[in-house]
Amino acid sequence: MAVKRQKWSKEFGEWFRDVLINAGIMDYRYPIKGSGVWMPYGFKIRKNVLDILRYLLDTAGHDETLFPLLIPETSLAQEAAHVKSFEGECFWVTHGGYDKLKVRYALRPTSETVIAPMLKMWIRSHADLPMKLYQIVNVFRHETKATRPIIRMREVATFKEAHTCHATSEESEQQIQTAVELYKMFFDIVGVPYVVSKRPDWDKFAGALYTIAFDMLCPDGRVLQIGTVHNLGQNFAKAFDITFENKDGSQEHIWTTSYGISGRGIAAVLIAHGDDNGVVLPPIIAPIHVVVVPVPYKGKEEQVNEACKTVASKLEDAGFRVALDSRKELTPGNKFYYWELRGVPIRIEIGPRDLENGVVTIVRRDTLKKQTWKMDDVVSAMQTFASDITRDLKANAESWMKERVYRVDSLSEAKTLLKRKAGIVEVPWCGKDTCGHSLEEAVDARLLGFPEDTTETVDGECLVCGEKATNVVRVAQAY
Amino acid sequence: MAVKRQKWSKEFGEWFRDVLINAGIMDYRYPIKGSGVWMPYGFKIRKNVLDILRYLLDTAGHDETLFPLLIPETSLAQEAAHVKSFEGECFWVTHGGYDKLKVRYALRPTSETVIAPMLKMWIRSHADLPMKLYQIVNVFRHETKATRPIIRMREVATFKEAHTCHATSEESEQQIQTAVELYKMFFDIVGVPYVVSKRPDWDKFAGALYTIAFDMLCPDGRVLQIGTVHNLGQNFAKAFDITFENKDGSQEHIWTTSYGISGRGIAAVLIAHGDDNGVVLPPIIAPIHVVVVPVPYKGKEEQVNEACKTVASKLEDAGFRVALDSRKELTPGNKFYYWELRGVPIRIEIGPRDLENGVVTIVRRDTLKKQTWKMDDVVSAMQTFASDITRDLKANAESWMKERVYRVDSLSEAKTLLKRKAGIVEVPWCGKDTCGHSLEEAVDARLLGFPEDTTETVDGECLVCGEKATNVVRVAQAY
Repeated sequence: MAVKRQKWSKEFGEWFRDVLINAGIMDYRYPIKGSGVWMPYGFKIRKNVLDILRYLLDTAGHDETLFPLLIPETSLAQEAAHVKSFEGECFWVTHGGYDKLKVRYALRPTSETVIAPMLKMWIRSHADLPMKLYQIVNVFRHETKATRPIIRMREVATFKEAHTCHATSEESEQQIQTAVELYKMFFDIVGVPYVVSKRPDWDKFAGALYTIAFDMLCPDGRVLQIGTVHNLGQNFAKAFDITFENKDGSQEHIWTTSYGISGRGIAAVLIAHGDDNGVVLPPIIAPIHVVVVPVPYKGKEEQVNEACKTVASKLEDAGFRVALDSRKELTPGNKFYYWELRGVPIRIEIGPRDLENGVVTIVRRDTLKKQTWKMDDVVSAMQTFASDITRDLKANAESWMKERVYRVDSLSEAKTLLKRKAGIVEVPWCGKDTCGHSLEEAVDARLLGFPEDTTETVDGECLVCGEKATNVVRVAQAY
Repeated sequence: MAVKRQKWSKEFGEWFRDVLINAGIMDYRYPIKGSGVWMPYGFKIRKNVLDILRYLLDTAGHDETLFPLLIPETSLAQEAAHVKSFEGECFWVTHGGYDKLKVRYALRPTSETVIAPMLKMWIRSHADLPMKLYQIVNVFRHETKATRPIIRMREVATFKEAHTCHATSEESEQQIQTAVELYKMFFDIVGVPYVVSKRPDWDKFAGALYTIAFDMLCPDGRVLQIGTVHNLGQNFAKAFDITFENKDGSQEHIWTTSYGISGRGIAAVLIAHGDDNGVVLPPIIAPIHVVVVPVPYKGKEEQVNEACKTVASKLEDAGFRVALDSRKELTPGNKFYYWELRGVPIRIEIGPRDLENGVVTIVRRDTLKKQTWKMDDVVSAMQTFASDITRDLKANAESWMKERVYRVDSLSEAKTLLKRKAGIVEVPWCGKDTCGHSLEEAVDARLLGFPEDTTETVDGECLVCGEKATNVVRVAQAY
């Protein structure tokens, strides 16, 4: 049903880089490596994606805020594990004008240590809790790995980070579950399939008790981490001495969580649904739902153009985001190519014969199949097509991923699958760090962690030590 | 009509700092001087203000984008006047992780030199022009002057900057006029009175042919620059060699403009309408239009609360942003204080006697006057009140400013007025730089420039050289 993805299996990275710039989404040729420009069309996609996140967070009682970019080194250093992990990948501001700063500033790699000193001032008593904040900002990592547009940037131009504070450990645990549910809703809405795993201890966020992560499978068989949820316990509260007066009058440290989705949340949608002809956008995030293209024939130009205008304004009145492509310098074929590349979900073509028959030709971007439809019913047709496309994009992406999740009981089988980047491999694991590290080494891939999105248990033995497995662990080639 | 502003005349700076934090708008106590936090309520005000700007720019054919933060020093240095002006006030990134960077990066103080290298790649022919882009980002200045919340920050968290490209000088001139009109519309919508002046040559934007600026008068008699519009001519195009193929096939440098409004665009609204009780928000930017406060009386709590709920949901259904303050731990008086501080335009009180009479008590935030209204007519009352408040806020702020613009013909009179910070003083000027500088020195104030918002001419002599004046020039104490 879906268009062939032959190119992807070979050169997914190249496909992604090309499509971003050719579709006017992101230009990656900025003079600083790992920085990109969100172009007008891409910016609109980005906004639509972020609006879904905003809606979900707002509805779940989060408040949007905006904290500073710069972190004094003294703040960053306050949580020991945190600074150890981040100091080597921060960009550092050392001078203001011609003067050397007394304390250098890090460009935020994440904002726990930006927010903590403010929480210390804001939180006095249990009545101030829970507090749920978020912001959408740029963050910076001095990546030493090869950078990739949106996926691995030095300036991550888009980072939605939520930070919550609670009076008890139980409440913060509950918030972690809520956050996971919110992120599931988000990725379900944009039709991106995922697995949710509890990261092994050595791969958790620096300063967290534990980290739960969302991963998607890319067309080249590698997984991409697309969202993370961290239970920070009282680690940051203790490091910054953030306390509150409990109901019984005693002072206690607060419990905090943080969870984030970066620009990868946008990349995920482009990757999950794109094909050889360009990106394919689910209607909910498409800047343009439908493009109307006149297919004129000599002497009939005016009637055809008029009919296109009528159809376009009818669709606009019905609430669709519509483009009428009446450019004279391009052929209809050029226009089809132009809008397919940009992933506009539906194209409507009108030619002289359509006019005579009172019909339009409707083309779905995902299948590229043409259908004839009565011109009078064009609004209801659009409603049907839009919901069909939303459903089919999600279903196809999901079945594609599900076929690539393997449950195996032998190390050699796991190794073979992972070597040819077949997908995500689940094997029994005892849960011990030492076995985990050995496993990663043996299969030359990354442990994603125990599944968090299934209650299935496993009967089997750890592939390394042979002891009874606690659960399966997911392993994959990873970005 | 308006509430007394006695406090302001003395301690405007203190009033502003206090009201920002007390009303939950911005917390300025971040560990880095000149950085602040947009808190939840303030963030909503900010969003509503920015949405007006977005609407105006989008409707006028601008596309929103997002460019990187970091500027290689080599890019910044490409336009000579520009780098000279900015290098001394940039924050500089010199290290990535443990490594020293080969070329250091400036945190953008403005984005002309960020955008220019991309324009060079994007613009090929006259068909690519005009191009009108904008972004809303943070910018950085290593201020050596005393910082002030929102007004003078080191991290300017909110900067709307537009950048446009044109094929001819005439078109860029035309765009300057359009930009001035857009900014007039913006400040008119939020009810902030302004004067528009062409800055003297020594005070134009670095790299511009000329700068037109919007200034408002603060309650302490000093002016605040709240928006600027720059005609950049071909200066940046030549520095970055940005050319296009003209209709006749020849290569020509493009013509560019830029115009910006910072967080001062938000501060301006708070400053223009606030009073001793807190901020006063025009309904269009108020996160909450109306707060409903029950004024219960023993034994009547339930009926009063029910009536409040009914009124609140009726207003919500009618499209108003409504808060129902049913907090038990606060007295009605505490609640009045709480919402007045936050500038909610209308308060509705309902007590047992109101209930009996089928009425509500409506209080306007700007006048604090109470009125009784039929409960059944509460929706239409709100519509009337909201539009009255919008009109009156603007009219009062305007008449307040107009009374403080003086046209004088003697240096001593100008000096006296400016010494006591009476407002904006207009005096005849020949237009020569030397006389301008002498004038600034003589009156110990700043030349705002020739009026751009009036076609009035002047018959008089330059107060310095005695030659025939070209026009009046505006002079004021300035932030």
